[in-house]
Amino acid sequence: MRLRHVKNANEKLAANEKYVILNPLDYVGKWNVVFGNDHPIHIEIGMGKGQFITELAKRNPNINYIGIELFSSVLVRASEKLEEASIPNLKLLLFDANKIDELFWSQEISKIYLNFSDPWPKKAHAKRRLTSPGFLDKYQKVLRKEGNIEFKTDNRKLFEYSLLVLHSHQIIISDLSLDLHKEERADNILTEYEEKFSKHGPIYFIRFTFKEKE
Amino acid sequence: MRLRHVKNANEKLAANEKYVILNPLDYVGKWNVVFGNDHPIHIEIGMGKGQFITELAKRNPNINYIGIELFSSVLVRASEKLEEASIPNLKLLLFDANKIDELFWSQEISKIYLNFSDPWPKKAHAKRRLTSPGFLDKYQKVLRKEGNIEFKTDNRKLFEYSLLVLHSHQIIISDLSLDLHKEERADNILTEYEEKFSKHGPIYFIRFTFKEKE
Repeated sequence: MRLRHVKNANEKLAANEKYVILNPLDYVGKWNVVFGNDHPIHIEIGMGKGQFITELAKRNPNINYIGIELFSSVLVRASEKLEEASIPNLKLLLFDANKIDELFWSQEISKIYLNFSDPWPKKAHAKRRLTSPGFLDKYQKVLRKEGNIEFKTDNRKLFEYSLLVLHSHQIIISDLSLDLHKEERADNILTEYEEKFSKHGPIYFIRFTFKEKE
Repeated sequence: MRLRHVKNANEKLAANEKYVILNPLDYVGKWNVVFGNDHPIHIEIGMGKGQFITELAKRNPNINYIGIELFSSVLVRASEKLEEASIPNLKLLLFDANKIDELFWSQEISKIYLNFSDPWPKKAHAKRRLTSPGFLDKYQKVLRKEGNIEFKTDNRKLFEYSLLVLHSHQIIISDLSLDLHKEERADNILTEYEEKFSKHGPIYFIRFTFKEKE
């Protein structure tokens, strides 16, 4: 995603208390308190402008959604779009996914979405890819045992890499598509990026759960 | 592949003694005698009209190649194209891959190629797909420990199925591409089918070895 500088991004985020949580580490293990109920929590890592998670939250009022974004300039766009809306089961955080296992208690999360993550094409940056082994280990910590991860991307190299990483990991694949849009799945919610770029090539998709550690 | 009836196919095959072996089960465990040397043996299952394996055999005189085809009408086409050639390291067999583990001794084979295999799209026919678990078990029997399998196809559903099957199998993936032709690999030899149809969509490719059974 192209990053534009947004003036006073942090001040703007602070002004949107309804959705934006600026001190997320205060709520570790207490996310049900934030939402005021015990519904399952689903998160999107790298939520961008938020179209995907906002639509999910509207459709599923009995699930709590947390959108996580690294860049304040991007999160401001998402939060601005929400100002008029009233979606009590949605929160947005500015947070670095590298520390995702510090943000939640073990098994506090029921589902993780990774959509069109940065491919980090250089081999030297492979550890930064959100499907690298280090990230998978952190996801496994915070996910409930039956919890799953859905990952979609249009980046072929990233998906090839992810398949290889996942093959070496103790996971169970529950769904896989090498051309998601050809399948006309009614339940596929488009991200902003997906709307714009899916005409250029296939969208790759995988859903998986972790096998229990022995 | 479209099957055309070929008159007297079996007689024509019998006339091409240089390449076609009509009684392959006579040579179980003795394939090195057929070739007159101890070079490694690579096979292609479902060789079709033979362009792929013929080109491989020409390029690699120190490897012995066996092309296996189920339909005599197809094998006749391959054998006719070879009449003028002299390729001592190539043999063609009419044989049903279901019995591949009866055709070779344990570990007699160093490599298996599966190219554009029949997708058998109906779920009820899944067992007939050449990457189904039953076939993989037979391949593992005849393959040397370090031997590998290369599989390429343009059929997305077949490749998705194969990835799922392979994920549940004890294998190691050594190479994977979701668009082989975009990678401009000089070592990719085209099949007849691949030449004709690769413009319509990506060619999927995987190379893998079996983990040793515990």
